[in-house]
Amino acid sequence: MPDRLTHVDDSGAARMVDVTAKDVTARVATARGRVEVSAEVIALLRGEGVPKGDAIATARIAGIMATKRTPDLIPLCHPLAIGGVEVDLVVEDDAVAISATVRTADRTGVEMEALTAVSVAALTVVDMVKAVDKLARITDIEVVAKSGGKSGDWTRPTSGQA
Amino acid sequence: MPDRLTHVDDSGAARMVDVTAKDVTARVATARGRVEVSAEVIALLRGEGVPKGDAIATARIAGIMATKRTPDLIPLCHPLAIGGVEVDLVVEDDAVAISATVRTADRTGVEMEALTAVSVAALTVVDMVKAVDKLARITDIEVVAKSGGKSGDWTRPTSGQA
Amino acid sequence: MPDRLTHVDDSGAARMVDVTAKDVTARVATARGRVEVSAEVIALLRGEGVPKGDAIATARIAGIMATKRTPDLIPLCHPLAIGGVEVDLVVEDDAVAISATVRTADRTGVEMEALTAVSVAALTVVDMVKAVDKLARITDIEVVAKSGGKSGDWTRPTSGQA
Amino acid sequence: MPDRLTHVDDSGAARMVDVTAKDVTARVATARGRVEVSAEVIALLRGEGVPKGDAIATARIAGIMATKRTPDLIPLCHPLAIGGVEVDLVVEDDAVAISATVRTADRTGVEMEALTAVSVAALTVVDMVKAVDKLARITDIEVVAKSGGKSGDWTRPTSGQA
Amino acid sequence: MPDRLTHVDDSGAARMVDVTAKDVTARVATARGRVEVSAEVIALLRGEGVPKGDAIATARIAGIMATKRTPDLIPLCHPLAIGGVEVDLVVEDDAVAISATVRTADRTGVEMEALTAVSVAALTVVDMVKAVDKLARITDIEVVAKSGGKSGDWTRPTSGQA
Amino acid sequence: MPDRLTHVDDSGAARMVDVTAKDVTARVATARGRVEVSAEVIALLRGEGVPKGDAIATARIAGIMATKRTPDLIPLCHPLAIGGVEVDLVVEDDAVAISATVRTADRTGVEMEALTAVSVAALTVVDMVKAVDKLARITDIEVVAKSGGKSGDWTRPTSGQA
Repeated sequence: MPDRLTHVDDSGAARMVDVTAKDVTARVATARGRVEVSAEVIALLRGEGVPKGDAIATARIAGIMATKRTPDLIPLCHPLAIGGVEVDLVVEDDAVAISATVRTADRTGVEMEALTAVSVAALTVVDMVKAVDKLARITDIEVVAKSGGKSGDWTRPTSGQA
Repeated sequence: MPDRLTHVDDSGAARMVDVTAKDVTARVATARGRVEVSAEVIALLRGEGVPKGDAIATARIAGIMATKRTPDLIPLCHPLAIGGVEVDLVVEDDAVAISATVRTADRTGVEMEALTAVSVAALTVVDMVKAVDKLARITDIEVVAKSGGKSGDWTRPTSGQA
Repeated sequence: MPDRLTHVDDSGAARMVDVTAKDVTARVATARGRVEVSAEVIALLRGEGVPKGDAIATARIAGIMATKRTPDLIPLCHPLAIGGVEVDLVVEDDAVAISATVRTADRTGVEMEALTAVSVAALTVVDMVKAVDKLARITDIEVVAKSGGKSGDWTRPTSGQA
Repeated sequence: MPDRLTHVDDSGAARMVDVTAKDVTARVATARGRVEVSAEVIALLRGEGVPKGDAIATARIAGIMATKRTPDLIPLCHPLAIGGVEVDLVVEDDAVAISATVRTADRTGVEMEALTAVSVAALTVVDMVKAVDKLARITDIEVVAKSGGKSGDWTRPTSGQA
Repeated sequence: MPDRLTHVDDSGAARMVDVTAKDVTARVATARGRVEVSAEVIALLRGEGVPKGDAIATARIAGIMATKRTPDLIPLCHPLAIGGVEVDLVVEDDAVAISATVRTADRTGVEMEALTAVSVAALTVVDMVKAVDKLARITDIEVVAKSGGKSGDWTRPTSGQA
Repeated sequence: MPDRLTHVDDSGAARMVDVTAKDVTARVATARGRVEVSAEVIALLRGEGVPKGDAIATARIAGIMATKRTPDLIPLCHPLAIGGVEVDLVVEDDAVAISATVRTADRTGVEMEALTAVSVAALTVVDMVKAVDKLARITDIEVVAKSGGKSGDWTRPTSGQA
């Protein structure tokens, strides 16, 4: 077991870890999450009987833009050369399923950017449905896969601990 | 059932809803969420055998600061006069439990600010533990209670739909 | 004729003009502009033969979000309580026509916010079409009407000087 | 004719295009635009009889700073390593002519940064003159030239379509 | 003696203090500071023999803009309705003396905004002179006076403790 | 003596200097500063008789985050790939001593980032103590050392001019 978190030094002080000696390599990370909503919201998002409009596009764009704000939000994150982002929202029967894939050519990985994209897309969905469904809940935000960098490729196991 | 989401107009176009005619009143919202982490991370966050350091403080401050970035992140949110923020993190046996209470004296509610505080505090926890626990998962982010404004006080029911 | 611009003092130094003694009143401003594009771009934006997709929604959301960034961009602008924003894009035969209406209840007007919404929506259109049409041009960005505040209602005359 | 805009995928969803496989090369882009203003404003900006002060410098600095905010404003723009910026404003007889040149060593071009610099410098001019001239109009914002990258050098033709 | 800092609660946790119950009143704060520079820099800033150019204007505008970024920078600061800002720079014989006055009509004071304006104007001066004078030093940044709010008017005593 | 500041061109106009032709190399800069505070504040920060809480951690995190905002604050600064940051605060008998070390692998140095980290950490200290000590003063902010880049290593001389 490591004797401390990498983001704090021996005395416990927070710091941004030095990555300047790491190689610039292509890196990719994918994250996902869900927003549980009522049946009424599902019908509105599917545009049943009415134009479904910009709701899903708004959440997708919010997620894409949030990748670029990640280092402003998360104190010890490095600013990265974000090189590509896809955010996907699927309206399921009881939830909106969100996934985000972020690519970079830089010195550290983009898991936090992918998780931030999913989180902000999810918050944007809640913002748009909250007048109709006060119980909307964001859940199961997690990294699904990452590749590139020294630690190599990783895919989240289907169940249990790694 | 409403025939559309309030954030889109009759043609489906996204818009920021006009609140200028609403009264300035004191409003409060509380949200909560959890970050599920491994036993190893729990031990590190509790500082068993080592200084626990700034980790929890870093996540708390990230959450507080995020309330002020909410309108930059969520496209249709109004900028608000944030008047007070508390973010609380409790290290439980298998998760970090996060709650946030945000106060304003303004024309619309602060649920999104409270949810954003919880989300960003949760992301910050994941950022600090991800080298030790790749499986960390953010879950159950939801509004717990709100008060103030025309719609009055509301508390999330213990179970089931409202 | 005034002997100087209001944003500089007697010595010529830039300053943010003091508005603290002004009344909080409802204020509205509308601005418009155009992005001249090729016939090919018009066909793509109209979705002739292909899904037209998120292009117009992306520009609309960029415009809405930009109203909230106005004081970060324009050095002497006051931060304002933006209370409502609508951004409209119409695909015409040789251009995308953009208009934006911004509302506030605050101590100064929102012309700059409306102009910024139009400008950033226009830049976003250019960004999306520039691979197809290098000659895209943004033109005729201007205030159309404003109301509220001490100076009262104003509508841009159809032609000539006020 | 391309069958879609590069910024949307086959289903029409907005995305940030992946540029991670492109080479880091020196790239330059120049854009220009104009703010049409009244004769009275021209006299004030020229400092006839009074100190002309910081007005032009304020707009120039706003334009330079805006290049750094481009990816925050334009949803699908990549964050870039801006390496140099010049913004030039010339007070002509009936307008302020603005041009901006932006340089980078990165994986994609800087046309949007140059256009954003011109746009924000123009908005700043309008902000400073709007109390004197409500009819100020921003016009003719366009890319003049670009170089670097795979597509090579390009200069806007004097008239007509490319 | 108070038993704790107002920005931490009884357990020591950082929080943004609740000001929603305070009155909206006109408030003003003035701060000052100095940048000590070499004689060579003084000559360049005074434009002896060369155009002095935009250097002082750049620092002034940076200071004004920084007042609007204060809550983004200082974690526990409230976002405020900044209503007016003046930043003054005087080139003295061995230093640039900076002062800033910030006004608001809001629920809490603007000392931090005034101090931030001075600090960022000072940093901007250092940025512009650092190639000529590596020893430039920022010093004596302090609140000079404040008025408005429940605590009333206050002026820094000429020497000694309050 | 140089005939002008590097950040202005021959006509005196501000510009962001072109660094695109410079090499990407590892660069480090260290800055320091002090916040002079009352004995009462020192006791509170040391946690004498009460939990000292998050105060120092809050200032440290504010300093780290500020390095990432440097190009947003200082008009002519280049955005840089910040690769590591450490901010240290020591509670001395009559002041809080702050130092910051910033690392990058980029085309220009990080002195401004280190100075900004110290300045914002200092402002955060003042924010937290100002209710107890109105006379808190920020002083002696300066670069201590830098290395990397064409100009090589430099350490501030103990006294006198370089």
